[in-house]
Amino acid sequence: MTTDASAIRDRAAIAGIGATEFSKDSGRSELSLAVECIASALDDCGLRPADIDGMCAYSMENNPDVSIMRSLGGRELKWFSRVHYGGGAACGVVLQACAAITAGIAEVVVVYRAMNERSFQRFGAGVQNQPRLPTTESSHFSWYAPFGLLTPASWVAMCAQRYLHEFGATTEAFGHIAVADRKHAATNPAAWFYGRPITMDDHQSSRWIVEPLRLLDCCQESDGGVALVITSTERARDLKKKPAVIRAAAQGIAPGTEMMTPYYRESITDLPEMALCARQLYATAGLGPRDLDVGIVYDHFTPFVLSQLEEFGLCKRGEAGDFVAGGNIELGGGFPINTHGGQLGEAYIHGMNGIAEGVRLIRGTSANQPARAEHVLVTAGTGVPTSALILGQP
Amino acid sequence: MTTDASAIRDRAAIAGIGATEFSKDSGRSELSLAVECIASALDDCGLRPADIDGMCAYSMENNPDVSIMRSLGGRELKWFSRVHYGGGAACGVVLQACAAITAGIAEVVVVYRAMNERSFQRFGAGVQNQPRLPTTESSHFSWYAPFGLLTPASWVAMCAQRYLHEFGATTEAFGHIAVADRKHAATNPAAWFYGRPITMDDHQSSRWIVEPLRLLDCCQESDGGVALVITSTERARDLKKKPAVIRAAAQGIAPGTEMMTPYYRESITDLPEMALCARQLYATAGLGPRDLDVGIVYDHFTPFVLSQLEEFGLCKRGEAGDFVAGGNIELGGGFPINTHGGQLGEAYIHGMNGIAEGVRLIRGTSANQPARAEHVLVTAGTGVPTSALILGQP
Repeated sequence: MTTDASAIRDRAAIAGIGATEFSKDSGRSELSLAVECIASALDDCGLRPADIDGMCAYSMENNPDVSIMRSLGGRELKWFSRVHYGGGAACGVVLQACAAITAGIAEVVVVYRAMNERSFQRFGAGVQNQPRLPTTESSHFSWYAPFGLLTPASWVAMCAQRYLHEFGATTEAFGHIAVADRKHAATNPAAWFYGRPITMDDHQSSRWIVEPLRLLDCCQESDGGVALVITSTERARDLKKKPAVIRAAAQGIAPGTEMMTPYYRESITDLPEMALCARQLYATAGLGPRDLDVGIVYDHFTPFVLSQLEEFGLCKRGEAGDFVAGGNIELGGGFPINTHGGQLGEAYIHGMNGIAEGVRLIRGTSANQPARAEHVLVTAGTGVPTSALILGQP
Repeated sequence: MTTDASAIRDRAAIAGIGATEFSKDSGRSELSLAVECIASALDDCGLRPADIDGMCAYSMENNPDVSIMRSLGGRELKWFSRVHYGGGAACGVVLQACAAITAGIAEVVVVYRAMNERSFQRFGAGVQNQPRLPTTESSHFSWYAPFGLLTPASWVAMCAQRYLHEFGATTEAFGHIAVADRKHAATNPAAWFYGRPITMDDHQSSRWIVEPLRLLDCCQESDGGVALVITSTERARDLKKKPAVIRAAAQGIAPGTEMMTPYYRESITDLPEMALCARQLYATAGLGPRDLDVGIVYDHFTPFVLSQLEEFGLCKRGEAGDFVAGGNIELGGGFPINTHGGQLGEAYIHGMNGIAEGVRLIRGTSANQPARAEHVLVTAGTGVPTSALILGQP
């Protein structure tokens, strides 16, 4: 068998979304954030804590489902799992829910991400403060540490520099993405950078973090929580809000995929693990790039947005720099992206806030609602094992 | 809908099993152990690394799938996930594989557990050496720490003491399990305690760890790795060995389930999360306790074996002490358990070695093969969110 089409097409839908405010210092525990955003997502679709029978989280999540269940008033879980690799898990947890629902194991699966990422554990610090242990993962990073490759920005900069070299692009290509994100955030009241757009000049004059990445190429550090309630499409139709049907969801690890350091490949400017996701999504959904109206494209750093647009066939290899120019990715353009402001503009909740925006786009309730949103692409963290999904109208 | 029956019945099978030797000091990295046992499991069923398209591990596993894929020569993964809660994950990772295969997401899923648990990170030390952080999980254990509840033995002893009190049992009930395990290990060349059976006197005179748990009630600490190759039952039929069909697999979290400290319940002598697994298994498989011929019953500590036998309806509440007496759980008895020697006798690989024994029982190749093994029950870690499965003949 060589098909990439799974049986999950249209079987499950996102029925409810919930979030806390996005801040730099939430002033409360991560557990509080988790319970708050899940309660809000349940309320959004009219379900109760006792209806939940499945939960899935990131392996980086500090709030175990049992603690949430107790605080929330949940009853029983028949499905609980984690997905590894930081933001690469964002759509992976949705795939988990689709599988559980398709296989009849659980009916109402909650996925969530809640953290005090700014006020408590700052991911931007990378692995420099982690204890050195003879574990597989720690050893892995030890091979890169002597060369100064210690932080997310340093890992991504390697690929970004090569992209500019290989395709003759300039950092203005990155700037177009930052400008679009911040433009959308400026009109999204939930965004941290609400009312604060930037210009290309602002981008170009912001300080280097790791060349060729400037401050305005890097996502925020945020405190906050976002949750989704996923159930069968059939059941979702009877709930309070219009469901966002999961046309397809997929995960991908490809040859040479590493955790942030995929340098031992012939090319380091593409993202073969995201290409694998794209192939699966299109096969499962029976769709192609022309069917996609809007994209929530994972933007922990701007350069990988370019490669993602290419991997999904929205433009040709090396041509994403042109694709993102001239307002094409802004509201009103040919393919608007990150209408919530992205993780540069709204908040960095490891991509979970992007999925919630995908749901609003399907509902027609985004702060920056494009004219057409029949199909929305949502992607997860890049430079790591990753995942993606396509949401559609019911 | 109130059914507990999922659609996974007989859809997937364990086609290959592989293991390293079990030791107290493997002398090599955990990654080596993982790659070794997976290569062995692939060889067992005649598949190649490039055939793997899904992997699932415990959240405690130190070997990420990407590292294994690179070392093993794998190609692409379309499904990768983790299950939390230590040994409670053992059958949960099998459920993950069943879901992925049933939903058509992956075809060949490898699940594994590989660790230097004796020579590197000893779980018996509990949480006493863990950094105190304001995370949900760390805070949880901080409520118990002031009362000396710091180690697995201390957590389990609370429930064990209560079991003895409530049902008028003596620690000989625990001893029967230890004796049966070690009797089976004594004739299993792969077991650490091969050739070293114990008597009830040995059990009763072994030193207290935490009253009422004696040394011989506690599982070993082991170095080693065990892997399973899971694929569709259809495909498994064409492979090298007789497949062990997964009749049913289930996970369970119930009201009051905690991570090792489920004390805030009306009763602490039952295991409602395992009862939830039992209910799901029987509903999915269309079987009942009388259909089970052999049990691989998770035995990190002997007392919870009693509660498990009760939760699965193999005997009535409070009567497991009688059930395990008189050789009933030994080879040749009414319901033999842990024919490999269990985790007290063979090795403590977080239950993964028990699932491999379940497969051998279905194949008829156990070192202690009972006359009849039409259906084998396998359970995962107790006192935590847990899981279980029923294996059957093809």
